[in-house]
Amino acid sequence: MASRPAPTGRLRAAPENFLDRAAIAQVADEARQGRRGFLRSAFAAAAAGLAAAPATAQPAGDPAILELPEHTRGLGQPVAADGYGKPSRFETNVQRRQSPGLTQTRQASVSFAPLQSLFGIVTPSGLHFERHHQGWWDIDPSKHRLMINGLVKAPKVFTIDEIMRLPSVSRFRFIECGANTGMEWGNVAVPTVQYTHGMLSCSEFTGVPLITLLEMAGVDLKKGRFVLAEGADGSSMTRTIPMSLIRSGEVLVAYGQNGEMLRPENGYPLRLVVPGIQGVSWVKYLRRLEVGDQPYATKDEAIHYLDLMPDGTHRQYSGIQECKSVITTPSGGQMLLDQGYYSITGLAWSGRGKVKQVDVSVDGGRNWKAARLQGPVLDKCLTRFQLDWAWDGKPALLQSRAVDETGYVQPNYRQLRAVRGSRSIYHNNAIQTWLVEASGEVKNVQVS
Amino acid sequence: MASRPAPTGRLRAAPENFLDRAAIAQVADEARQGRRGFLRSAFAAAAAGLAAAPATAQPAGDPAILELPEHTRGLGQPVAADGYGKPSRFETNVQRRQSPGLTQTRQASVSFAPLQSLFGIVTPSGLHFERHHQGWWDIDPSKHRLMINGLVKAPKVFTIDEIMRLPSVSRFRFIECGANTGMEWGNVAVPTVQYTHGMLSCSEFTGVPLITLLEMAGVDLKKGRFVLAEGADGSSMTRTIPMSLIRSGEVLVAYGQNGEMLRPENGYPLRLVVPGIQGVSWVKYLRRLEVGDQPYATKDEAIHYLDLMPDGTHRQYSGIQECKSVITTPSGGQMLLDQGYYSITGLAWSGRGKVKQVDVSVDGGRNWKAARLQGPVLDKCLTRFQLDWAWDGKPALLQSRAVDETGYVQPNYRQLRAVRGSRSIYHNNAIQTWLVEASGEVKNVQVS
Repeated sequence: MASRPAPTGRLRAAPENFLDRAAIAQVADEARQGRRGFLRSAFAAAAAGLAAAPATAQPAGDPAILELPEHTRGLGQPVAADGYGKPSRFETNVQRRQSPGLTQTRQASVSFAPLQSLFGIVTPSGLHFERHHQGWWDIDPSKHRLMINGLVKAPKVFTIDEIMRLPSVSRFRFIECGANTGMEWGNVAVPTVQYTHGMLSCSEFTGVPLITLLEMAGVDLKKGRFVLAEGADGSSMTRTIPMSLIRSGEVLVAYGQNGEMLRPENGYPLRLVVPGIQGVSWVKYLRRLEVGDQPYATKDEAIHYLDLMPDGTHRQYSGIQECKSVITTPSGGQMLLDQGYYSITGLAWSGRGKVKQVDVSVDGGRNWKAARLQGPVLDKCLTRFQLDWAWDGKPALLQSRAVDETGYVQPNYRQLRAVRGSRSIYHNNAIQTWLVEASGEVKNVQVS
Repeated sequence: MASRPAPTGRLRAAPENFLDRAAIAQVADEARQGRRGFLRSAFAAAAAGLAAAPATAQPAGDPAILELPEHTRGLGQPVAADGYGKPSRFETNVQRRQSPGLTQTRQASVSFAPLQSLFGIVTPSGLHFERHHQGWWDIDPSKHRLMINGLVKAPKVFTIDEIMRLPSVSRFRFIECGANTGMEWGNVAVPTVQYTHGMLSCSEFTGVPLITLLEMAGVDLKKGRFVLAEGADGSSMTRTIPMSLIRSGEVLVAYGQNGEMLRPENGYPLRLVVPGIQGVSWVKYLRRLEVGDQPYATKDEAIHYLDLMPDGTHRQYSGIQECKSVITTPSGGQMLLDQGYYSITGLAWSGRGKVKQVDVSVDGGRNWKAARLQGPVLDKCLTRFQLDWAWDGKPALLQSRAVDETGYVQPNYRQLRAVRGSRSIYHNNAIQTWLVEASGEVKNVQVS
């Protein structure tokens, strides 16, 4: 089979990479030399030194040794001096990427996580998606404060140190931008899963339950039914969070992400973690929480992240990210290089709890098979699924459909549009379809 | 209270950081200006332009606005151009560190994870501990091969792509060097938890169960009771893995760590994951697996990672990392800045399964209290524990004691030495003691 261009994703397998019997023998030979060749030549050199016995000494520049890769012959690098590692030079293509079609200025920018290249459920913090409403900052934590005011007995101002001294919790949670998969409403069919679904990430977040801080300030839980969260960056992002969610203990004032401090572009030194709710409510650079008796209807809530419904009205405060899933491999932009076995894998999540089931179809939704769910399956967290598949070389339509523990079933486009119309931007959780062409090319298509 | 030097860890809280009533009013003022000041001046400027009404216009350079931090007034940075983020400039002190007392050459080096600064259970890959037997390499994955030979019907050579095409699993697992806490055998009492316990990390690893690859090669499971794993770096690290462990499906040929490809210093592009077993068996730069009928007793197994017993004999193949725990905060080198509330937190783990219980003592082991375990509690994975504590300003001896699901109880030094003597280097899982002095200083001490 002729060589083909490398696909975008992980399907780099090509049958010509299988070594034949002669190649196996050669590698076996190299391995033996790697383990024993050094000893042989070292002994020989020692013998040469002692007895000047050139007949038994290994000649300099032994071709068998020179054929070994450098890393098998020599010394590598000691531990890195800067004390913080980075990915391989061969992985520089795995990066979060901006979309040419969207804003990318200091006023507003977005980058997408490379879902097609990720494994498991944790998103490396360096690849976590970004959405900046007026650019990101690296704020000095020693100067940053968090104020709690409004319907509380004693307004409080916390330093970061004071917050970090309190008992914390750590939880694996997904975060998804409300606008994720937004372009698909218009059937724009952007090419790759990085751009269709890449405003999605998952981390182990560490912080203090917000209810703890509110109680320290003597919150009035009778009148105080909402909290306004406000960010310190230029956008002064403000979002209303219902007290019912806060009282559940789910909402965190977080400083940790994947074991270390939050990254600057993700809200360092403090961000709100609002599990199951769209990312814009996870206010970054969090500086103030005001307890009130009604939703605040701030500019960010009145203008953005609204759902334009078929009757022309706007639906507000619809921030729960409903059950959704997507196949990340094979996905748009990748290429199947040969017929035969493929591992179909992807991610499922629900803002209402745990994923209960994921079904996969390879014929556009006519037949479904239950996928294997990778444990642990956690609340409001990404869940990875997998299904074995033998591709017969014919066109195929790959879909995944998730069901969460409430029984909610991820809709297809026909079902979603019947309720929501077609002019929305936000909260698109429809079933994604990838077309595998006979050539092996994988493309983003929309089927109803 | 006078200002004191900042402690090493997270206990940076100082009472003088609490703002007084005037300071609260000022921050409240700033927050109001942040949200409304811009609108006011924008309206005013517009009014000035329309009606030339200087009496209502905001004067240029309004001091109230100039006092706001820059990040509240201006535009931040757009998404980073290089597509891969890094920690805040204020966190550069959180790094893995070499020990001056140990080797740090290209021939052999080690760096320790900063446990005192980490949250939750995931270790950021950039802070994962390192142990190099002949330095690390960044190996070209397209040229790397994994050979399987020995007692198999058809020896096989896999490319990375071929391995990545197979169905994978992802699992959160700890890895601990067999020499972790080794200096404490000699009661050297190195100062911080980074150096006493920092050859410990935890990641979500992704790969193919080794048994799958062996079965593809037609492994002889009757005769084949051991597998030799061999690395491709200069050390040609070789370790014997029992087939019983491999048949359980636990042992992985891994390429993924925390969602992305392994880091070069942790074995990119392939390493063995041998849950519960000391780190040296997790062979990095994995290039060969040979199935045999007996343990290989290679040089690495015959000389290193042995336990020198009280009777002068060496115990070999004792690679299981028994149940262990350590308090990471407060810990050596930190300082308690005032009396009152502290959250005692740390990590527990067992090479034999799940952690069942962690008890904490503040009086050197006379009295114990059950700590809260942070979920999810996973098999052969780090588990974080936490206990509330009110420090009365008197000296205290902090200890943690873990129990795993087999019922094994982490020993104290007296119990451990009774069995193992005092001349070992490896496999020290004794209870760690931190002395809190009346001054607030926290020190590493050994109590029996």
